[in-house]
Amino acid sequence: MGYRVSSISTPHGVLETPFFMPIATRGAVKTLSSFDVERLSSPILLSNTYHLWLRPGLEVLKQFGGLHKFMDWPGVILTDSGGFQVFSLEGLRKLTSEGVAFQSHIDGAKMMLTPELCMEIQRTIGSDICMVLDVCTKLPATDDELEKALELTTQWARRSKDAFEKTREGSINPGAKLFGIVQGGTNLELREKSARALIDIGFDGYAIGGLSVGESCEDACQVLDVLDKILPEDKPRYFMGGAKPHEIVEYVKRGIDMFDCVLPTRNARHGQLYRFLHNDLSRPDFYETIQITNEKWKMSQERLGTDEELSRYTFGYLRHLFTIEEMLGGRLATMMNVKFYLELMKKIREQIKTGTL
Amino acid sequence: MGYRVSSISTPHGVLETPFFMPIATRGAVKTLSSFDVERLSSPILLSNTYHLWLRPGLEVLKQFGGLHKFMDWPGVILTDSGGFQVFSLEGLRKLTSEGVAFQSHIDGAKMMLTPELCMEIQRTIGSDICMVLDVCTKLPATDDELEKALELTTQWARRSKDAFEKTREGSINPGAKLFGIVQGGTNLELREKSARALIDIGFDGYAIGGLSVGESCEDACQVLDVLDKILPEDKPRYFMGGAKPHEIVEYVKRGIDMFDCVLPTRNARHGQLYRFLHNDLSRPDFYETIQITNEKWKMSQERLGTDEELSRYTFGYLRHLFTIEEMLGGRLATMMNVKFYLELMKKIREQIKTGTL
Repeated sequence: MGYRVSSISTPHGVLETPFFMPIATRGAVKTLSSFDVERLSSPILLSNTYHLWLRPGLEVLKQFGGLHKFMDWPGVILTDSGGFQVFSLEGLRKLTSEGVAFQSHIDGAKMMLTPELCMEIQRTIGSDICMVLDVCTKLPATDDELEKALELTTQWARRSKDAFEKTREGSINPGAKLFGIVQGGTNLELREKSARALIDIGFDGYAIGGLSVGESCEDACQVLDVLDKILPEDKPRYFMGGAKPHEIVEYVKRGIDMFDCVLPTRNARHGQLYRFLHNDLSRPDFYETIQITNEKWKMSQERLGTDEELSRYTFGYLRHLFTIEEMLGGRLATMMNVKFYLELMKKIREQIKTGTL
Repeated sequence: MGYRVSSISTPHGVLETPFFMPIATRGAVKTLSSFDVERLSSPILLSNTYHLWLRPGLEVLKQFGGLHKFMDWPGVILTDSGGFQVFSLEGLRKLTSEGVAFQSHIDGAKMMLTPELCMEIQRTIGSDICMVLDVCTKLPATDDELEKALELTTQWARRSKDAFEKTREGSINPGAKLFGIVQGGTNLELREKSARALIDIGFDGYAIGGLSVGESCEDACQVLDVLDKILPEDKPRYFMGGAKPHEIVEYVKRGIDMFDCVLPTRNARHGQLYRFLHNDLSRPDFYETIQITNEKWKMSQERLGTDEELSRYTFGYLRHLFTIEEMLGGRLATMMNVKFYLELMKKIREQIKTGTL
């Protein structure tokens, strides 16, 4: 199919693709309020089912009428299913066909996540775009292990969809969408099998899971090239958990519409900033990352940005804030990096429209 | 003299007294940008000579044209002289009549602060209200120790004033003011002696140092009652480093015009919030402090404030942010507590004007 600018309609807004989602795992983009994210002009946030389930918990989310109201976010919310988080937990974890039993990372409480419960939690959160519960296999894995995980992922996808439909009526956000998650690692046959099974079930969009786990950009591109020929053209495609700016361009060219990634926000808190160098996105050197704590920024009077707040401060002042370990530094840097990713997506959309990408 | 509403004119604005100064020790109110502090409507910030001297250092401050430009703060800046910080340092520290030799708390470098250097640094910072370098004596101290410290403080006050006048011409903020600092602990005779010596030299305002170090409100009031009869009526009086909200009311009644205190900002970062209970400021129970992490706030839909940003969030959401240790929590709480102190001062000014304090 190749790439295109399209749109996704949700109960909290229409989104022009391709777009990037800042990560608000536990109901806040680290260091930022929803007021801040609005000013950065992101129309969507990503949050996490597993983390919100544990804290603040379903009782609080119900009382407040969902996450939109709890964090006062008027835009779109996508929630990851929490599968990745549960499978990443250390310690006791037991996978059965029913679901996955585990211990809370907070208090060690024994819990069990099933596809049905996962849908119920996301309905309580009031997410606009929900994700099915999938089985995440630790790599490296044998083809046999991958195949078994895939079978279960497909079963769970079907159960997720059934549960999602059953919980629509009476939910706080009945117009929510549900995405399937294609698994299969870097095994192209399994990827194809996974995608075809999900298409049979039928989803509002298709996510590609199990990438952004250390594989090369080339390996990821091979998977995307295969899926590009299989996934329906009229449904959005979401690359989960990635990627670096130049990789995003490559993945967009292979038909990806949606991205989320911790890099801009996590790097910001460590003083790593992205900056555009030129507008030719086909060359991977279109940006640089700088370390603001370096001596070279000490005297820099270059401004952090062009908006009302960032235009007031200089690289020299930001360096000072990091030097004294003032958390305002991490906050301003987070704004800068989120802005960079949002601007990258805008550039990509513009260049697709003008046929210059 | 008693209390009154007055005003202080500075190169960066006219301030109505009594007022409170949020603390930006190292060029930022912890968690807040100057953009934020402006939105909180504080006309003044307090910063610290010692800390700015060490970081970012004079070279950077000169390059940027002073602290106002470095942190893009259009309002008034008062700088504490750094005497208190130097005398609080652990390790090697040697006091001579010339100045105080010490080791940097950052890299152990040997440094020496003199009254003359202290003025030069504050001129480089471009402070609107500068403080003389004073000798801070560790309590408990004998009367003899206090008296010796006082003599040196008076000598340094004179040298500070001379150096301040000599550096006026060609400085970036020639209209800056210089305040003397009354010392003498809780010894009322020494306090009187200190005040009279400073009045002889002549300053734009008088600070009361060496309080807010653990003494009772009654002891502090005794000192203020003595000074109230001595200090010139037409010059502002600044209570350094204090105080709790109900103490501020008591000190205002004893003629104090200016306050600074870490309590609102430091407590905020630990989830302790101030709230007004009623408007009768003569009763010390006019406010309460709450611990936002308490279970009782879990479901609270009460709003954090009435302004554009704080009115969006609830006590329940703020509790969640503290529970997950998200720094946005400390930031919102800081805004709330700074707002509380600013509002307290506004109430005090209004009640003085209407004769109801």
